[in-house]
Amino acid sequence: MSKIGLRELARELGVSISTVSKSLRHSHEISADTREKVLSKARELGYHPNPYAGFLRHHKSKTIALIVPELTNNFFIQAISGAESVARERDYHILVYNTNDDTAQEVGILGHLQNGRVDGVIMSLARTTTGSEHMSQLMESGIPIVFFDRICHEIETAKVTTNDFASSFNATEHLIQRGCRDIAFLMLSDTLSIDNKRKQGYLEALLKHDITLPPDRIVFCSGDEDANRNRIRHLLDQPIRPDGIFGSVEKLALSSYYVCRELGLHIPSDIRILSFANLRTAPLLNPSLTAITQPAYEMGARAATVLFKYLEKKRPIIQNENIILRSELVVRESTGG
Amino acid sequence: MSKIGLRELARELGVSISTVSKSLRHSHEISADTREKVLSKARELGYHPNPYAGFLRHHKSKTIALIVPELTNNFFIQAISGAESVARERDYHILVYNTNDDTAQEVGILGHLQNGRVDGVIMSLARTTTGSEHMSQLMESGIPIVFFDRICHEIETAKVTTNDFASSFNATEHLIQRGCRDIAFLMLSDTLSIDNKRKQGYLEALLKHDITLPPDRIVFCSGDEDANRNRIRHLLDQPIRPDGIFGSVEKLALSSYYVCRELGLHIPSDIRILSFANLRTAPLLNPSLTAITQPAYEMGARAATVLFKYLEKKRPIIQNENIILRSELVVRESTGG
Repeated sequence: MSKIGLRELARELGVSISTVSKSLRHSHEISADTREKVLSKARELGYHPNPYAGFLRHHKSKTIALIVPELTNNFFIQAISGAESVARERDYHILVYNTNDDTAQEVGILGHLQNGRVDGVIMSLARTTTGSEHMSQLMESGIPIVFFDRICHEIETAKVTTNDFASSFNATEHLIQRGCRDIAFLMLSDTLSIDNKRKQGYLEALLKHDITLPPDRIVFCSGDEDANRNRIRHLLDQPIRPDGIFGSVEKLALSSYYVCRELGLHIPSDIRILSFANLRTAPLLNPSLTAITQPAYEMGARAATVLFKYLEKKRPIIQNENIILRSELVVRESTGG
Repeated sequence: MSKIGLRELARELGVSISTVSKSLRHSHEISADTREKVLSKARELGYHPNPYAGFLRHHKSKTIALIVPELTNNFFIQAISGAESVARERDYHILVYNTNDDTAQEVGILGHLQNGRVDGVIMSLARTTTGSEHMSQLMESGIPIVFFDRICHEIETAKVTTNDFASSFNATEHLIQRGCRDIAFLMLSDTLSIDNKRKQGYLEALLKHDITLPPDRIVFCSGDEDANRNRIRHLLDQPIRPDGIFGSVEKLALSSYYVCRELGLHIPSDIRILSFANLRTAPLLNPSLTAITQPAYEMGARAATVLFKYLEKKRPIIQNENIILRSELVVRESTGG
C-alpha cells in the first residue's frame, strides 16, 4: 500500500487538502466536527506527517533566543560565545536579549517570543525574578527553555549550572586557612538559585570551623555600582571590620577593590578578597584576584547542545536534568598568593 | 479630494485591488503592460503607499543582525549593548553573529542573511577582510548595512567610527612628552581601516617630533594570544628595546603586560604602555593602564539609530555618511601617572 499523505487523506474524506492540513494543525478555521472526522480517518489509515514538513512547520525559524540579565559581564559573554559556536555548527541563529536584571523586561521578552519567532530559549534569570509563570507559559506554548547558571527550580527542563555549593564552601575554607576569622559575603539576591547555594556553602564552611558572625556580614547588593560601594564602605569603615571578603559575582569584587583603595586598606594584609569571576584581567589586577572561575563558555555550549538535540529530535518534552560543571579556584595575591 | 489608496486606484482603472497591489510591487504575476498602466495612473492621481502597509511588507522581520569579529572583547560587547538598548525601544530583535575575525565566516553569514531573515545589518569587519563583494551583494539584495569601528570604505552607507587618527596622534605625543623616544606600535592588520588610521596618527606624531624608527617597531599581531606574546617578547628581549608601547587594541596591551612580567621589565620605569581599551578593570590593573577609551556603547546605539531611521522611513538608500565620535585618553600609571 502506498504511503498515506495529505492528498490521500483528502481523497478518502472527500474534502480539500487544505481542510485536512488545517484539521491536523487544529486550526480554528475548522469546525470541531470536521476536525474529528479528519483525525479519526488519519488514525485509521496510519497517517504520519512528513518529518520535513513537520520540521518546517514546527521548527522553521532555526533561531533560538539567549536571554541574559547583563551583557557587559564576562561570564554571560563567554556563555553566549559558547552557545553561538554550537549554533553556528548546526546552522542555527541566535537572538540575544538583555533583561537588565529586571523581571518586567524578562516577562516582556518571553511574551514577545510566544509568536514563534524562535524554536527555543536559553536563559539565565534576572536578579529580581521570583515567579515562574511567564516561563511556564512559554513552555506550554511549545517553546522549550533550557536554563543556565541562574536557573528556575520550578520549571522541569534541563539546567546547566556549576558546583556552586562546593566551590563556595572550598573558597570560604581557603580564606579560613589563610587566617580569616571574620568573612563578609557579598551577594545579589536571596531568591537567586545560585546565590543561595553560594551563601549556603559559605555558611556551612563557617559552621564547620565553628565561626559565628553577626548577620550584617551578609551584604545584599544590587545592579547599582554606587549603591554597592556605599554598602561595602559601610561594612569596612567601622572599628571592627571583616578580615575577608567573598564576592558572589565579579563586579562586587571590583567594587571592593575600589573601596579598599579609598579607605587605604591593603589587600591582602588588611583584608583578603576572593570572588566568583571570569575576568580575563584577574591575573593583572593590583593585587591579582583569587577567583572561582566558572567554565562559562562550556556552560553556554552545553545548554545549546541540549536544546538543539531536543529540537532536532522533536521530543515532546525536555527531560528534567541537572547538568553540573566544575568551577576552578585559582589562588592569587588577593588572598595572600 | 479624498486620499488616493489602492481601492481608489483599482476603481479608476477597472481592475482588482490585488492587481493594483501586485503591480505596485512589480510582481511577476502581472504583465508589463498592466503594470505600466497602473503605475502611470498612480503617478497621475498622486498615489502614495500607506507607510504601515509598506512597513509590513518590506520590513516584516523586525530583526537586525549585529556582526562582530570577536565576542569576548569589551569594545564589541559594549557596542552590542548600546545597539540592543535602542532595538528594545523600537521593538526590534537582534541576531548576534561572531565572525571570529575570519573573512570566510563573514562571507558565510552575509550569504545566509540574504533570505530576508533580517531587515538590516550592523557590522564591524573581520581582521582579514579586504574585498567588499559579499557586502555589496547584501546591499543589492535590499538589506542595508551600517558599519561601525572597522568600516568598509568601498561601500556607500553610514559609518560610525571614532576620531582614530587624532586619538592616536595625541596618545603618541603623550608618550613622547613622558620621555619616550623609541615607541613600538602593535597592530592587527594594515588592511583594517581603523588600524590604518591609528598607525597614521602614530607615524605623523613621530614625524612632528623628528623621531625616526626602524620598521620593526611596527609589529603585526594576530588573533592568537601565544603568537602575539612571542612577537612582543622578540621585540622587548633585545639589547636596544623600545621605551614605549602603543597597543592598537586592548588585548595587545594585556599581552605586553604579561611579557614585561616575564622579562622583569617594570612598567612605567623601564617601558611605558598605553592602548586603545574598553576594559572596566583598566584602573585596577598593576599598574593601572593609560587607555584611549572609545564610546563603544554610544557607537552601537548610534549605528542602530541610523539603521532604524532608515528602515522606518523606507528611504531608498542610506546616505553615505561618516559619523565620528570622540574617544578619550585617560592617563594612568602605565605611562607614569
